[in-house]
Amino acid sequence: MQVIEGSITAPKGFMAAGVCGEIKKKGKKDVAIIYSQEKCVAAGVFTTNVVRAACVDISKAHLADGVAQAIVANSGNANACTGEQGEKDTIAMATLTAELLGIKPQDVVVASTGVIGVNMPMDKVEAGIKEAVANLSVDGADCAAEAIMTTDTEPKQIAVEVEIQGKPVRIGAIAKGSGMIHPNMATMLAFITTDVNISNKCLEKLLKESVDVSYNMISVDRDTSTNDMAIVLANGLAGNELIDDDNSHEYQVLKEAFVFVNTYLAKLIARDGEGATRLIEVRIKNADDYNTARVMARSIVSSNLTKAAVFGEDANWGRILAAAGYSGALFDPNKVDVYLGTVKMAANGVGLDFDEEQAQEALKQETVLITVDLKAGSYEAIAWGCDLSYDYVRINASYRT
Amino acid sequence: MQVIEGSITAPKGFMAAGVCGEIKKKGKKDVAIIYSQEKCVAAGVFTTNVVRAACVDISKAHLADGVAQAIVANSGNANACTGEQGEKDTIAMATLTAELLGIKPQDVVVASTGVIGVNMPMDKVEAGIKEAVANLSVDGADCAAEAIMTTDTEPKQIAVEVEIQGKPVRIGAIAKGSGMIHPNMATMLAFITTDVNISNKCLEKLLKESVDVSYNMISVDRDTSTNDMAIVLANGLAGNELIDDDNSHEYQVLKEAFVFVNTYLAKLIARDGEGATRLIEVRIKNADDYNTARVMARSIVSSNLTKAAVFGEDANWGRILAAAGYSGALFDPNKVDVYLGTVKMAANGVGLDFDEEQAQEALKQETVLITVDLKAGSYEAIAWGCDLSYDYVRINASYRT
Repeated sequence: MQVIEGSITAPKGFMAAGVCGEIKKKGKKDVAIIYSQEKCVAAGVFTTNVVRAACVDISKAHLADGVAQAIVANSGNANACTGEQGEKDTIAMATLTAELLGIKPQDVVVASTGVIGVNMPMDKVEAGIKEAVANLSVDGADCAAEAIMTTDTEPKQIAVEVEIQGKPVRIGAIAKGSGMIHPNMATMLAFITTDVNISNKCLEKLLKESVDVSYNMISVDRDTSTNDMAIVLANGLAGNELIDDDNSHEYQVLKEAFVFVNTYLAKLIARDGEGATRLIEVRIKNADDYNTARVMARSIVSSNLTKAAVFGEDANWGRILAAAGYSGALFDPNKVDVYLGTVKMAANGVGLDFDEEQAQEALKQETVLITVDLKAGSYEAIAWGCDLSYDYVRINASYRT
Repeated sequence: MQVIEGSITAPKGFMAAGVCGEIKKKGKKDVAIIYSQEKCVAAGVFTTNVVRAACVDISKAHLADGVAQAIVANSGNANACTGEQGEKDTIAMATLTAELLGIKPQDVVVASTGVIGVNMPMDKVEAGIKEAVANLSVDGADCAAEAIMTTDTEPKQIAVEVEIQGKPVRIGAIAKGSGMIHPNMATMLAFITTDVNISNKCLEKLLKESVDVSYNMISVDRDTSTNDMAIVLANGLAGNELIDDDNSHEYQVLKEAFVFVNTYLAKLIARDGEGATRLIEVRIKNADDYNTARVMARSIVSSNLTKAAVFGEDANWGRILAAAGYSGALFDPNKVDVYLGTVKMAANGVGLDFDEEQAQEALKQETVLITVDLKAGSYEAIAWGCDLSYDYVRINASYRT
């Protein structure tokens, strides 16, 4: 597998665009379209929030047949808690996009992100869609990545190439996410394109398996959003034989690539958490089952107190153990070792005399690595988050205004 | 029931003291003792964190016989994650206190709060205990309330009097808590004294029932601590006939008083949350069962995004609904009304055109009232928290240093 230039238009047969529809206040790009020249096998995972935008239900319905050909997305307005009008507006977005592209509305996935509870400015959205369709091109991926941003400070994209049956197969993806991040699945948007030839069953599994160890392992603020989804479109243009067996070598090669792509973007989202100054990576080692490791990693990476301590470069490792303790995971605290970077802070649940300077050094890194060794079994999980800074509060104290 | 002056020494037969042991850096009071001249019926509820200080297990063991006569508490050091030494130090605190008071170590409850993972400076703690025992008096309640504070900005105490069988019965309490607050039970310390004559069974129930609707309904940062407990001592000196029936009128009178006392202190803790500028009260109305209301109230009051919006006086009610949606409670979002103060922000899950000035006014109140009406049944729950401010981050970025 190798990383290549570009993102969602790197696989064969995909075009994209991102334009300014003036939904956002500052005239930034806010309408994106991703389009495949061929119909795609498609799959999605969606927010588990009971309160969700119409686009979640409608996109789920449009994907029920496992087929799609385009994604239309807007930022600046989540179109959530907008009732029947919100539903109408979502359908209007799909219908207009389909008409302009000459495809069926059922083959369009709709995604929205932004403020909750405000009606969509549909005149602006529709003008944006028209302009975006007119601008579709292989060069449009960067603009699409920009157009789905909200409080993100930078676009998030990647593409990779793997070889399957001697043929180059490409996977590209863009994602957005910065606040309201505590996926389950998932508190962000991710759009993944690929030219691989794959069955719907395998594609769905591929997406779910890779999302579980990537987007579902990040947290910025423990707030799960109303709108979020990860969507994959596979148009088959790479020309490999159909992958229909999840035990095959080909599936494993693809899975590795999907995990790489989605983990890369998930870490970018965590690092770009609102106000974040650093990425935090929490590794739970030697748990006696995977779920224990996973639940504990998510709990520690989500702890306000741990996050604030990292921001302040305060080696307050007791908060790490406390967050492990209230995670709901069962474990023996008297066996636990805790590391900040490579500095051992506690052994068998008891604090060690550690070198404050070395600990500070570990906390000054761009990625702060926290390792908890349960010494109980052989399972491991990794979660990512960011520190909690003054700027998180500033950004979220005046999000609407 | 009437509120009276004082706190833990207001009931007959109790004395208290709080002194400077120099465990804290700034020479503030940090060792407290509460003592009853008669043996007490006693009960406690404790943190559910898997990682917990020795004082939790040892105090639980000391309360196993339902009897206690004194509480010794220190602030500045949690004596958690300190292994066998921590256990020895806790036992030493109980033993010294018992010796000086002429009672059994098993009748002493030990509580610690402060930084995790650092050994107790036992010479200072022991000197503090000696001084505190020497200073025990009816006037010592204020000092004891001060001595259990960590980042609290003010002592928290109250006393009430009720009449039972024509006799005045008093209940007094002190509490501490400011950060690492997400009780389950419970993320703080609360010590309750009373001169009522009551059976152990009824006292335990009284404590649990009142804790569930008070301390267990507050959150500052969703971080459940390693050390926390609520302890009640009842010495029977009021001279009423033994209360042994939880269906009796007397039990109900006491329960009302216990709920009042513990709710009063719980709200003080939430209001005094680290960096808080306001108290947030979340009421869930008309749920179809109590658990739905409770889980949802706790989720909303814990949401970083809702808390940051209150700090910024931003009427971002969509975050309230989003936090209801990911709470785990099942409900129909299309029936939900949301209020900020008395201003209706959303009806049937859909945003209304609201008056921004009125909404701002509701957000400027000392207590910001959020009401979610599920219009599904008749159950209600209330939770309390505080806003998320720059100062929360500042305090927690450098807690140890």
